Amino acid sequence: MIKVTLIGTGTVSTHLKEVFTKTDSVEVIQIIPSRGDALSKALKMSPRHDKGEHKIEQSDIYIIAVSDDAIKSVSEQLNKSNVLMVHTSGSVSIDALPSAVRKGVFYPLQTFSKGRKVDFKTIPICIEAEKKGDLELLLKLAESISESVYEISSEQRKSLHLAAVFVNNFTNHIYQIGNEICKENDVPFDILKPLIMETLQKLDTLSPLDAQTGPAKRSDQQTIQRHLEQLKNKTHKEVYQILTKSIKETYAEKL
Amino acid sequence: MIKVTLIGTGTVSTHLKEVFTKTDSVEVIQIIPSRGDALSKALKMSPRHDKGEHKIEQSDIYIIAVSDDAIKSVSEQLNKSNVLMVHTSGSVSIDALPSAVRKGVFYPLQTFSKGRKVDFKTIPICIEAEKKGDLELLLKLAESISESVYEISSEQRKSLHLAAVFVNNFTNHIYQIGNEICKENDVPFDILKPLIMETLQKLDTLSPLDAQTGPAKRSDQQTIQRHLEQLKNKTHKEVYQILTKSIKETYAEKL
Repeated sequence: MIKVTLIGTGTVSTHLKEVFTKTDSVEVIQIIPSRGDALSKALKMSPRHDKGEHKIEQSDIYIIAVSDDAIKSVSEQLNKSNVLMVHTSGSVSIDALPSAVRKGVFYPLQTFSKGRKVDFKTIPICIEAEKKGDLELLLKLAESISESVYEISSEQRKSLHLAAVFVNNFTNHIYQIGNEICKENDVPFDILKPLIMETLQKLDTLSPLDAQTGPAKRSDQQTIQRHLEQLKNKTHKEVYQILTKSIKETYAEKL
Repeated sequence: MIKVTLIGTGTVSTHLKEVFTKTDSVEVIQIIPSRGDALSKALKMSPRHDKGEHKIEQSDIYIIAVSDDAIKSVSEQLNKSNVLMVHTSGSVSIDALPSAVRKGVFYPLQTFSKGRKVDFKTIPICIEAEKKGDLELLLKLAESISESVYEISSEQRKSLHLAAVFVNNFTNHIYQIGNEICKENDVPFDILKPLIMETLQKLDTLSPLDAQTGPAKRSDQQTIQRHLEQLKNKTHKEVYQILTKSIKETYAEKL
């Protein structure tokens, strides 16, 4: 049984608690509110587990699942030494954790929304640790909930997180712009969903470089001009222009 | 039996020929090369159908499946009057067709790549015609291959096509940028695929407006700055900046 203390009450922490609780190999000791006074109060109160009394010291792994900015202060406040402490952030270095602990990272690469269920089995978990034994423990923990576990360095994780911002945050915003264009012209956005699905499914057989189509790729200036005239939102026009420029440059380089 | 003449030998034409041939209700009369001399030669030669001899006049519907720029000239070269003639373009008006014919549009809203199979049943087909009887015939033709047929005006189709450029062409390019970032840092792009899938699947239950997450949405200036420093490609930096600006503006408006 791996004993885990989860610190934080946000979306990642909530999801992790739920999925760990379902396994046979992980026991979740407690969730301590991480914000402001709550943490120090909780520490003083020697908080209780749902199923009985535990001291915070008893855990095998301390998972700091709080916002990026809070990782440093919360992990310091815990005032632990020589325990395995990990954070769950894609963009924060392993070195944000206190030097007194055995540092690690446990980063589930997924977008979590409150109230939306996710299937952890398919979520890649990126782990990192300074010591071999700790890495093995994190691997065991990760494999108890996911079929896809990767050992990823802080440097690699930084770039993964950046790439994730593109393929998740930016893609979603692109959907949002498409949705607005449809709304303005009284066309159901649903018509576009099979196209969106095919754009994604193509990735299974083609690289995005080979899958590219459209007016920017073929430098169809007439269509590009017409599209720019159609766009009423000035910023959406800029988005169109810069992505068109970026596509053109990509294929100019490859010729 | 609906007799169809397909003009053009490109990807859309090839896919349409294949799928029509599989139905019981459509007979594909011929595919005439549309480029340059080939069309006029084919017209003079009174071309033959695979299964016998047909005159080009005998078709119920003439589908001009050629590049946007060629629609006008190819449809004029056919020199037909009073026949139902449609093009397959998302961005060209119905009025690009000659005034002597009964005009229409038959636009399958999907991204076609040579050699990649698509399931036509799920592809939305947008139809338009000037006459009610012609619209009914196009509806019958569309429903013989797809479960999702929409009557869409030229004006609506124009905006759908623009929205499609965003959700397909631009999204694919965003994947390409993500792929490049991964490659540069020796991380497999596959790690990101579950995230990409979840970004799309969220659309079933949330609007893209509600599904948005990430540093731009929460105006996390520190992370944004770090990401910009990580990006080596100047144009990718611009893409990051303008999409971040666009997300910020979207949520500033909604507050």
